Amino acid sequence: MELKVYGHRVSQPSRAIMIFCKANNIEFEEVTIDLPKGQHKSPEFKEINPMGQVPAIIHGELKLFESHAILIYLASAFTGVADHWYPTDLVKRAKIHSVLDWHHSNLRHGSAAYVFNSRIAPVFGLPLNPQAAAEAEKFLICSLPIIESFWLQDSGLFLLGANQPSIADLSLVCEIMQLELLDENVRDRFLGPYKKVQQWIENTKNAIKPHFDEVHDALYQVSATLRKK
Amino acid sequence: MELKVYGHRVSQPSRAIMIFCKANNIEFEEVTIDLPKGQHKSPEFKEINPMGQVPAIIHGELKLFESHAILIYLASAFTGVADHWYPTDLVKRAKIHSVLDWHHSNLRHGSAAYVFNSRIAPVFGLPLNPQAAAEAEKFLICSLPIIESFWLQDSGLFLLGANQPSIADLSLVCEIMQLELLDENVRDRFLGPYKKVQQWIENTKNAIKPHFDEVHDALYQVSATLRKK
Repeated sequence: MELKVYGHRVSQPSRAIMIFCKANNIEFEEVTIDLPKGQHKSPEFKEINPMGQVPAIIHGELKLFESHAILIYLASAFTGVADHWYPTDLVKRAKIHSVLDWHHSNLRHGSAAYVFNSRIAPVFGLPLNPQAAAEAEKFLICSLPIIESFWLQDSGLFLLGANQPSIADLSLVCEIMQLELLDENVRDRFLGPYKKVQQWIENTKNAIKPHFDEVHDALYQVSATLRKK
Repeated sequence: MELKVYGHRVSQPSRAIMIFCKANNIEFEEVTIDLPKGQHKSPEFKEINPMGQVPAIIHGELKLFESHAILIYLASAFTGVADHWYPTDLVKRAKIHSVLDWHHSNLRHGSAAYVFNSRIAPVFGLPLNPQAAAEAEKFLICSLPIIESFWLQDSGLFLLGANQPSIADLSLVCEIMQLELLDENVRDRFLGPYKKVQQWIENTKNAIKPHFDEVHDALYQVSATLRKK
């Protein structure tokens, strides 16, 4: 069955899906949805995801959206995905779900809205929104110390004391990478105090070489352009 | 292994866990965390959930928080839970994950914040926050028509065209029940236009008799008190 991944490499959850597929030798067709041109709101794309958001996948008869749901599906449906990505052990799996659920209302809620409203809204033809950015910043600055002192509290290279990455590491690190779109000093203000977080990002990059950087290349390029302006 | 459920019956995700256990004959000790007195922020409770939120569970060595993660764990760890709650079929399961992930950033994001900031903040010693309520209302009024026209689009009594409830039905309906805390005319303004949503709420109540109403009784009582004021 053919797998199509609809996304855009500047979208953090899209990158997570693409990196996961590449790291696990899952063949897929990458269909780029042109977000700046509003293609995600087109009737054609809404046939695939009525919510008008990327990423989404089609696999056989299944149309699926929401990146965590997609990661779990791919880890379960494709043989050959190593157990550490989404462990069959119920307790380990439960804790990964807990991280992913926490992510929704905390890190992602803060980071995505902060970057959008303080930096990249004009790319989508929208004005910056300092008030929404300030509100989002509260969630971002509360989330990072929780990752540092709670989710990374156990010895181990990854979240929850694991020595190999899970879908939770991939999802959260791709989210934090979005801070690359900020000015360097702003990014450093957020991440600077959190040494474990910084090390964990490096561990994740290293564990998913060369796919991590290859898929992030589009982000690095947009970042360089924004920082030059 | 003993199961302890830490929660409060006026908390919508706490109710979902308790109802799930009762409906599936899972024995548990209910430990009420006195939210108005701030017991969820106590050092004792933060030993169980460092995020200081209910619900949380302890099952053997496992401490777990985030209600969706808990529901999935309970459905997986206890034999005798009927398959419809969290189907083993990968496609059905994927779609349930998709609903639950969508819920985080949409219905729950809107409903919980609207009810809190427009109505019950004073119970926790906080002022009402009309601006935050207005922001949350946008998410609430966008979410209900999506449930009506998308998640309930297929024939069937429950979400995704199912004829028996899943953990997604339980989670989302418990969230919507929180609107009982609003004045009746405000609640009706939100729910009135959505006949399928209203029918689905009734279907869920009926399918999980008598546990649904029994666990909601505390909410109905608080609602009656607030409406008298």
